[in-house]
Amino acid sequence: MSAEPIRKELLYEGKAKQIYATSDPDLFWVRYKDDATAFDGKKRATIQGKGELNNRISAIFFEHLGKAGIPNHFVRLLSPTEQLVRKVGIIPLEVVVRNRAAGSMAKRLGLEEGMPLARPILELYYKDDSLGDPLVNSEHALVLGWVKEAELAEMRRLALAVNEALQAFLAVRDVLLIDFKLEFGRTADGKVILADEISPDTCRFWDSRTLEKLDKDRFRRDLGGVQEAYQEMLRRLGGVEEGRLDQGGAAT
Amino acid sequence: MSAEPIRKELLYEGKAKQIYATSDPDLFWVRYKDDATAFDGKKRATIQGKGELNNRISAIFFEHLGKAGIPNHFVRLLSPTEQLVRKVGIIPLEVVVRNRAAGSMAKRLGLEEGMPLARPILELYYKDDSLGDPLVNSEHALVLGWVKEAELAEMRRLALAVNEALQAFLAVRDVLLIDFKLEFGRTADGKVILADEISPDTCRFWDSRTLEKLDKDRFRRDLGGVQEAYQEMLRRLGGVEEGRLDQGGAAT
Repeated sequence: MSAEPIRKELLYEGKAKQIYATSDPDLFWVRYKDDATAFDGKKRATIQGKGELNNRISAIFFEHLGKAGIPNHFVRLLSPTEQLVRKVGIIPLEVVVRNRAAGSMAKRLGLEEGMPLARPILELYYKDDSLGDPLVNSEHALVLGWVKEAELAEMRRLALAVNEALQAFLAVRDVLLIDFKLEFGRTADGKVILADEISPDTCRFWDSRTLEKLDKDRFRRDLGGVQEAYQEMLRRLGGVEEGRLDQGGAAT
Repeated sequence: MSAEPIRKELLYEGKAKQIYATSDPDLFWVRYKDDATAFDGKKRATIQGKGELNNRISAIFFEHLGKAGIPNHFVRLLSPTEQLVRKVGIIPLEVVVRNRAAGSMAKRLGLEEGMPLARPILELYYKDDSLGDPLVNSEHALVLGWVKEAELAEMRRLALAVNEALQAFLAVRDVLLIDFKLEFGRTADGKVILADEISPDTCRFWDSRTLEKLDKDRFRRDLGGVQEAYQEMLRRLGGVEEGRLDQGGAAT
């Protein structure tokens, strides 16, 4: 087990996470928060335990994806709400993969929520809160210099590989992966790896038998049972809550 | 000169044009209207003479593009406000080509109006008034079955060829082509050709010395002198107004 790095200054505070520098220049310290926002921050709440649930769920997904050969920033859990990740420079694009029409795509294109798609659709959104993270196409991203062509190709390849791996992982747990959002970063040596988080905040998960929503749409749409849905997802993934760590690293 | 077809029933009435069937099953009769709308129909007005100006300007552009080897639906002028075109089934995508950031792209992405782009950006919009013609990407268009892959590739190729041809045609007339919107249709034998119109309603034209706007932005932004700007565009293109026809076909 590697030596515990020391947490240093807060580098960035987002809607759902804080990112800290560490004593190791190649590592970031991530703390998942209980804060929830939706609709570009117009809806806000605190969901008790969400930080811990998303920290654990993300860790499980990243570990699984790592074993499936998909490079990602996850290093190890540090505490119920914290994880150590590789330092990357975030590429300012959200990559959304959709297996069924839902959410903003269903609304924008007049499609029925849950309509299966003949093959997955990838979307790019420009990460800019002040602009409301607008949908863009690959030409905006390339011509405006947000990403290089080879990087974008790698992001597409990885996003589709993540979709394959997660769909299979979730199918045996009776969960449909409706859609999800990924972010990617560049490592110091210029490699593109998966970063950010993979959780009910960033994915749509439906129970495959009841089609019950097990994700942030319970918060967005005031369906109630938000915390319970996130807990159910952690349970199906085989994770454990409340200070019991499965991986190395001590609870703070 | 071919025999004059007879105008039959109105098939479609849009914001700026009426499309009629004709006695020839391969031809449509198009009447350009003076009506102007903007912002998804929220702003409306009648601009005296616009129908004639756009009919003539479109004819000049389509003729030039035809000579440049770009297949399009234009057959000939019929009257100051009418033209005969080949019948096509419209592909429900607007193809926008942008040489500089302006309009909706500048606003959505927080770019300065008029910012040159390192190379042209193509955008696709799904033609659906009730949805406000939303921006989409090529995967939406392909997976949702609006267009076939080979057709979309041909549309892209033609759109970039139109951009090259029009930029050169306009440069010597002291006009910058900022951006423009194209529509394409399928002929009876399955060929993709350029359709719809090319006019100050569908393009952004700036005087290359003064950067004065010579297009529909004068209407959208209440800049005044709308009719005069369209007249100036027709004048620079070498066209003539008011019932004087340069091409075959009699004024009605």
